[in-house]
Amino acid sequence: MSTRIPVVEAVTKANDALAGHNRERLDGLGIFGVNIMASPGAGKTSLIERTLPALLPTLRVGVIEGDIATNFDAQRVSAAGAAAVQINTGGTCHLEAQMVGRALDELPLNDIDLLIVENVGNLICPASFALGTHANVLVASVAEGDDKPYKHPRMYKGVDVLIVNKVDLLPHVDFDMPRFKRGVAALNDGVTTFELSCRTGQGCDAWTAWLREQVAQRRTAPAR
Amino acid sequence: MSTRIPVVEAVTKANDALAGHNRERLDGLGIFGVNIMASPGAGKTSLIERTLPALLPTLRVGVIEGDIATNFDAQRVSAAGAAAVQINTGGTCHLEAQMVGRALDELPLNDIDLLIVENVGNLICPASFALGTHANVLVASVAEGDDKPYKHPRMYKGVDVLIVNKVDLLPHVDFDMPRFKRGVAALNDGVTTFELSCRTGQGCDAWTAWLREQVAQRRTAPAR
Repeated sequence: MSTRIPVVEAVTKANDALAGHNRERLDGLGIFGVNIMASPGAGKTSLIERTLPALLPTLRVGVIEGDIATNFDAQRVSAAGAAAVQINTGGTCHLEAQMVGRALDELPLNDIDLLIVENVGNLICPASFALGTHANVLVASVAEGDDKPYKHPRMYKGVDVLIVNKVDLLPHVDFDMPRFKRGVAALNDGVTTFELSCRTGQGCDAWTAWLREQVAQRRTAPAR
Repeated sequence: MSTRIPVVEAVTKANDALAGHNRERLDGLGIFGVNIMASPGAGKTSLIERTLPALLPTLRVGVIEGDIATNFDAQRVSAAGAAAVQINTGGTCHLEAQMVGRALDELPLNDIDLLIVENVGNLICPASFALGTHANVLVASVAEGDDKPYKHPRMYKGVDVLIVNKVDLLPHVDFDMPRFKRGVAALNDGVTTFELSCRTGQGCDAWTAWLREQVAQRRTAPAR
């Protein structure tokens, strides 16, 4: 058991190098990449399903779906019109940069403006594995409770965007929004935040506008 | 990276041995132990809070709380009247038998009939680490969606009891109960199942009656 921590450190170091390689690849093509993380069932795939119809008229989107098992999510986002690749990790509880690198090989990268990676549903380990994307996005569901920033500080600390999903359930759950926000502010003050409901569509426009803006900024880069 | 799987196997093997030791300790004292697992925010602590008032008049309950950070949950169950120990795993995404063994040292085991272990909120890795308890309990929230058995087969396959929580939210979420149950049946047909709401209390009596029955069966054992 005593050899475990060095092994994990070597793994994350190797992962960082491969993540850097993925980033260079995306940058070379002017693709903006996001890594969407969350607990199981917080609404990652629902968010992507809401996002695609708003973006696809003008943007080309590729999606990498990470799951322990099934290709349900790739089917869902394919049905919504995106180029999708499913990664099944077997038992691994997070995506790693090498898995994303292999999935990139299967996507038509020359025809993509935005890459959405949906990580495995897990609020812990994905925070330790960079994938090479430009923004880490956390989807938190109000049904999960307001204590999650306190209990999962590493995840909340490391994200660039926080999506508070399922706000349509607020009247039906015990979720203390000020307590939640205090927890977030203590870890990641000023993090870009969107409160929305993927079920009703409420609040989703601000998120898709943000994505569109990030892609537009990449496009002005001369590399492509 | 190629050394990783053997290391993990050695870790789970060592864990199994320590879990066996925990089990002997509980059996020697006639204590019934449950390991409660779930996604973050599915309602593990709320379930324990609902359970304690129903049992404490007649049973003595010890609780081991597992979290990445904070002692919020131990505070909540202490307030509800149980002897509680908090384990903070740091970054580790599951409890291991050795952590539970150390926590057992801190509990008044001679004055306990029922041990409840609340695992770290994670639907993946806790399934691989036995703790020495007698029953694995999975709490699934209807807010998480009906696809979870399909996506997390290992967790659903390995549990003795399934609690379908937050049924009060059913009118407000898109949860296809027959689809969920088909997924469960394919992995773990006939698993003892309780549909309930920790928020309203609906359905909780059947679960606490089941626990009481398990404890009564242990008590008839001569070892104590």
